Amino acid sequence: MNVRITGTGSYIPRGIETNQDFHEHEFLNADGSSIDYPNEVIVEKFKAITGIDERRYVDKELTSSDIGFLAAQKAIEDANIDPEDIDYIICAHNFGDVRADTIQSDILPCLASRVKHSLRIKNPKCVAYDILFGCPGWVEGVIQAKAFIKAGMAKRCLVIGSETLSRVVDKHDRDSMIYSDGAGATIVEASEEEGIIAHETASFTYDEAYYLYFGNSNNQELCKDTRYIKMHGRKIYEFALNNVPLAMKSCLDNSGISISEVKKILIHQANEKMDEAIIKRFYRLYKTPVPEGIMPMSIHKLGNSSVATVPTLYDLIINNKLEGHRINKGDIIIFASVGAGMHINAIVYRY
Amino acid sequence: MNVRITGTGSYIPRGIETNQDFHEHEFLNADGSSIDYPNEVIVEKFKAITGIDERRYVDKELTSSDIGFLAAQKAIEDANIDPEDIDYIICAHNFGDVRADTIQSDILPCLASRVKHSLRIKNPKCVAYDILFGCPGWVEGVIQAKAFIKAGMAKRCLVIGSETLSRVVDKHDRDSMIYSDGAGATIVEASEEEGIIAHETASFTYDEAYYLYFGNSNNQELCKDTRYIKMHGRKIYEFALNNVPLAMKSCLDNSGISISEVKKILIHQANEKMDEAIIKRFYRLYKTPVPEGIMPMSIHKLGNSSVATVPTLYDLIINNKLEGHRINKGDIIIFASVGAGMHINAIVYRY
Repeated sequence: MNVRITGTGSYIPRGIETNQDFHEHEFLNADGSSIDYPNEVIVEKFKAITGIDERRYVDKELTSSDIGFLAAQKAIEDANIDPEDIDYIICAHNFGDVRADTIQSDILPCLASRVKHSLRIKNPKCVAYDILFGCPGWVEGVIQAKAFIKAGMAKRCLVIGSETLSRVVDKHDRDSMIYSDGAGATIVEASEEEGIIAHETASFTYDEAYYLYFGNSNNQELCKDTRYIKMHGRKIYEFALNNVPLAMKSCLDNSGISISEVKKILIHQANEKMDEAIIKRFYRLYKTPVPEGIMPMSIHKLGNSSVATVPTLYDLIINNKLEGHRINKGDIIIFASVGAGMHINAIVYRY
Repeated sequence: MNVRITGTGSYIPRGIETNQDFHEHEFLNADGSSIDYPNEVIVEKFKAITGIDERRYVDKELTSSDIGFLAAQKAIEDANIDPEDIDYIICAHNFGDVRADTIQSDILPCLASRVKHSLRIKNPKCVAYDILFGCPGWVEGVIQAKAFIKAGMAKRCLVIGSETLSRVVDKHDRDSMIYSDGAGATIVEASEEEGIIAHETASFTYDEAYYLYFGNSNNQELCKDTRYIKMHGRKIYEFALNNVPLAMKSCLDNSGISISEVKKILIHQANEKMDEAIIKRFYRLYKTPVPEGIMPMSIHKLGNSSVATVPTLYDLIINNKLEGHRINKGDIIIFASVGAGMHINAIVYRY
């Protein structure tokens, strides 16, 4: 028995926050000191590294579970299934529902329960739970769906990645420009046809557990009891470069598929330069040049929406909404992600 | 292949909060109105229903992941395994790490990553993730461990339930007296010997999703942007009575084990009267009287520590620390839980 993705959906928030919108922000260094050059320069440097032009923020009245529900509706429609037949709803996120202009994460009940409630599913045998696994949460949710299917505990799962990072950013931190909001959802089913060929997951916590963390504002006058998403960007960059290509290679080698067969790599949209460096090093492990167009990117217009980047990118491509990129029946693709934890995972998949 | 619990550990916080400690609290009705009778009467009524005499609160410097780690250490020692051989660390909780005197849930990184970091495990193949599933989170974590083992994705998992509800209570709400802190941990392994015989999980979200929720203080003068754990107690009582016995019966019937073979039922310690009514109704489904001593209770001294109650109770009994209760080799026990979501689950297990 195989495990395949049979439906996809995504929710891309309407609100566009451009790089220009950050020109008036008061950016500070981590120690609270001011930055010596003007915001225009800061923003240009930022764009050169990350590739981000714009990011999306949800409307004020929406939360992460709301947009997860909207993406889920589309995935169910796309798979053309009866929602009452879903065995698991797995919702990946990092901060729960954070209402606009508040600082508390609301994770009671779990977001999967909220999504199931909004989908008006009655079947109590549909188990709804959340997974916290950093940005790789959606990929890991798909791997967990595979486990339930392989163990005979499920036939059909809804796996959602939903995040509203706009609600947890420190406006005085340049890294705040990276973060975005969004949701992606997929139906994952038992199938006769090949789908997931191999997967790989790794959690690096010995030195790396707190590379992404919940910390204070760079503005030291703000309340010390209020915390925001924070990262040690340089350490993450080096960590990702050293470990993501190896995890991807291990996954591909386990799949028995040759590197030359790989048609697309859908990698977590964290930072364009970092993603390019990861792919370069991945191909170097096979002593093979990087094929043109192997790595579709949505980061320029959508930023880094954490758990939502990979399923959203996949949804865009298979619906022919990402210019210059197509996935055809039978194509081998790799999903890969890295993020808070620090966790890394990958899936080799035949479309 | 079977799946067994091969090690247990728990962390019971030192801080004892007695019922008398609530005599000076200003309890209010949900609408903010004052309550017509004195706190001594409120506390006595509370005790008569819930059975709770005392509950435990963690020391100021500890968080949920800290006590989860302390319980995990004991479980690893008890199972006598090399922590580097653990394939999964699954941490169930509901509010993440909430530092004393703050209102934010810190779930970045996930608590399982923090526990793995504190355990000084180096092996990156040990996957560390959190599950949010209300009070039934630990039982569900064991079920997920079973899925990974059955799917050939793991041999040995560490499943933790850890919670510090003292950090999210509304002091103006009588229900605040229910909540407690604690952590329980177990090692779950592939085994030749029988262990988990059957499991059952259900998520009721159509009407029930918000029976437990994150809401405002009963003191309407407090900030509306600060929220606490809240429940519709009467609705939960009726829901649990109607659905938990049926889920337990479905699980037992699937296991092929006769009701007369059941030696102990370890049920989530939510409320003594409710738990007694559930067990009574469960036995009524089999037209059998409730056997004496079937339901060990720790709630009198430990309160309701959410995900921690069931693994802690199990750890106490098998270490002969709960007077009048023993579990002997070969005994059939049922683990059962109900909580926020609303989720219900059960496991029929041969010790």
